[in-house]
Amino acid sequence: VTLLLALDLLGVFVFALSGGLLAVQRRFDVFGVVVLGLVAGLGGGLARDVLLGDVPPAALRDDRYLLAAVAAGAVVFFGSRLVERLTPAVRLFDAAGLGLFVVTGTSKALAAGLGAVPALVVGCLAGIGGGVARDVLAGVVPVVLRREVYAVPALVGAAVVVAADGAGLAGPGVAAAAAALVFALRMLGVWRDWHAPITPRWRPGPSA
Amino acid sequence: VTLLLALDLLGVFVFALSGGLLAVQRRFDVFGVVVLGLVAGLGGGLARDVLLGDVPPAALRDDRYLLAAVAAGAVVFFGSRLVERLTPAVRLFDAAGLGLFVVTGTSKALAAGLGAVPALVVGCLAGIGGGVARDVLAGVVPVVLRREVYAVPALVGAAVVVAADGAGLAGPGVAAAAAALVFALRMLGVWRDWHAPITPRWRPGPSA
Amino acid sequence: VTLLLALDLLGVFVFALSGGLLAVQRRFDVFGVVVLGLVAGLGGGLARDVLLGDVPPAALRDDRYLLAAVAAGAVVFFGSRLVERLTPAVRLFDAAGLGLFVVTGTSKALAAGLGAVPALVVGCLAGIGGGVARDVLAGVVPVVLRREVYAVPALVGAAVVVAADGAGLAGPGVAAAAAALVFALRMLGVWRDWHAPITPRWRPGPSA
Repeated sequence: VTLLLALDLLGVFVFALSGGLLAVQRRFDVFGVVVLGLVAGLGGGLARDVLLGDVPPAALRDDRYLLAAVAAGAVVFFGSRLVERLTPAVRLFDAAGLGLFVVTGTSKALAAGLGAVPALVVGCLAGIGGGVARDVLAGVVPVVLRREVYAVPALVGAAVVVAADGAGLAGPGVAAAAAALVFALRMLGVWRDWHAPITPRWRPGPSA
Repeated sequence: VTLLLALDLLGVFVFALSGGLLAVQRRFDVFGVVVLGLVAGLGGGLARDVLLGDVPPAALRDDRYLLAAVAAGAVVFFGSRLVERLTPAVRLFDAAGLGLFVVTGTSKALAAGLGAVPALVVGCLAGIGGGVARDVLAGVVPVVLRREVYAVPALVGAAVVVAADGAGLAGPGVAAAAAALVFALRMLGVWRDWHAPITPRWRPGPSA
Repeated sequence: VTLLLALDLLGVFVFALSGGLLAVQRRFDVFGVVVLGLVAGLGGGLARDVLLGDVPPAALRDDRYLLAAVAAGAVVFFGSRLVERLTPAVRLFDAAGLGLFVVTGTSKALAAGLGAVPALVVGCLAGIGGGVARDVLAGVVPVVLRREVYAVPALVGAAVVVAADGAGLAGPGVAAAAAALVFALRMLGVWRDWHAPITPRWRPGPSA
C-alpha cells in the first residue's frame, strides 16, 4: 500500500511537470501552469477513482496529491531557464507518469474486484486520462491519437500487472518492473520514431 | 433486462463504428481508431452510470461492452475499402447509436428512481455524450452544437420512453419503437437538411 | 440549506446565461444555445457532486436546476436584440456564477467532511468546471487558461469560506460576502486588464 501511494504521488508529480511544461510552451500564465499541472497530474487518478466508486477520490482525501501537483507547477514556473529543452522533457515526464499510473491504476482496479479486461482498461485510462485532459484543454491533439506509439506501452504494462496478479506474483518488484517497461517502450517509440499503421486507403499507392 | 442489455451492446457497437470511422477520416492510426471507438461507444454509458451512482459502470462489469467496442474498431480498420463512402456511414451509425442509447439511458434512469425530467436529461446525455467526447477528442465541433437537428430526436425518443413508463406501457415493443423513431427523425433531418433557427440578429435583413 | 440552494440555482442561471450567449456569438442554433447553457450551468455542480459521491447529483434530484438552466437559454435566445453588447455580458454573468459556485461548492465540500485544501480545490472546480466545459465544447481556449486573472478570485473566495468555517463563522452573511468578493475581484481584473506573469523566458530581453 505504501509503495502504491509513493508511485502514485510520483506519477502525479511527473505528469504535473508535463502539464506545466506544455502550459509554458503555449505561453499560458503562472495560473495556467498550475491548472494544467493539476489537470495532467490528477485527471487520470480522478477518472480511475470515480469509475471504481472510490469517492471522494484519493487525491481529495490526502493533501499530498494536491501538494505534489502544485509543487510540480512551481518547479516548472521558476525553473524555466531550461525552457529551451522543453519538448523532450515533456515527453520524458509524460512517459514516466504513464508507466506509474498504468501500474497503480491496474493494481487498484484489480484490488477493487474488477475482472482482467476491465482492470486493463481502467489502468490504461488512469495512465492516459490526465494527458488527454491536458491536451484537450491546451487545444492540442491528444497524445494518444497522434501517430505515435502511445497506447501500446500502456497496454503491455497493464497486461504485465494483470498477468502477475493472476500468477500470484504481485508485489513491489513487479510493479516497479512494469512501470519501467512502460517507460522504456514509450521512450523507445519516441526515440526510434515508431509509428502504428493507418488504414490501407491512405497509404500512397499507384492509384493515388 | 436482457433486451436492455442487447440494445445497449448494439448501441456500443454502432457508436464505436462512428468513432472508428471518424478516426480513419482524420487519418489517426490503428490505435486512434480503437481509442476513438471506445470513447464514442462507451462514453455516454459511462457518464450515465456515474451520474446514476451505478459504479463500477456496466461497461466495466461485463466484458462484452469492451469487446463490442473493440470489435467495431477492428471492423472499421480492416474494412476500410469502403472508406470512400464513410461520411454517410458515420452519420448512419451515429443515428442508430443515438436511438439505442437514448432509450436504454432513459429506461435505466427511470428504473433508478429519477423523476421524469431528470430521466429525460440522463437519457439524452447517454445518447449524446459519447459522440460529444468523440468529436472533442478528434478536434471537431461536437455534433450536437452543429446546425443540424440532433437534440430534437433524442428529446422526442426520451419523452416517448418517459410517457410510456408513466402509462405503464414500458416493454420491448415500446423500446424498439422509440429507438426506431429517434433513428428515423435523425436520418430525416440529415436527408432533408433540416436546420434549427438561430437568433434573429444573425438573419440577413435590411439593416444588416 | 435554503440559502445554499438559492445561491446554487442563481449560479446555474447566470452560468447558463454565459453559455447561451457564447453559443449565440458562435452562431450555434437554438439547441446549441440550450445545450451550452446546460453545460455551463450544470457542469461545475455535476463534477462537484460526482467527486463528493453525492449521486444522483443535486441537479438530477431537483427539477429546478434544469429549469433554471433551460430558462436562461430561452432568455438568451429570445432576448438577443441586446446581442451587440454580448461580450461584456458573458463576462459579467460568468463572474457572478464563479462567485456563487465557488462559495456553494466549498461549503458543500466542507459539509461532506473534506479537509481545508481539498475543499478549496472542489470549490474552485465547481466554480471553474462549467465554464471550462462550455469553452472546450465551443472550441475556445478555456477562460482559466487565458492570460486573465481568473483563478485568483476563485481561490480567494474559497479561502474565505474555509477560514470562516474554521473560525465557526459560516453563515448566510459570510457566504454572500465571499461570493460578492469573488465577483468584485474578477470584474476588477477584467476592467483593469490585470494579467498574471508568464515565465521569464518569454519576456522580451536583450538576448531575445
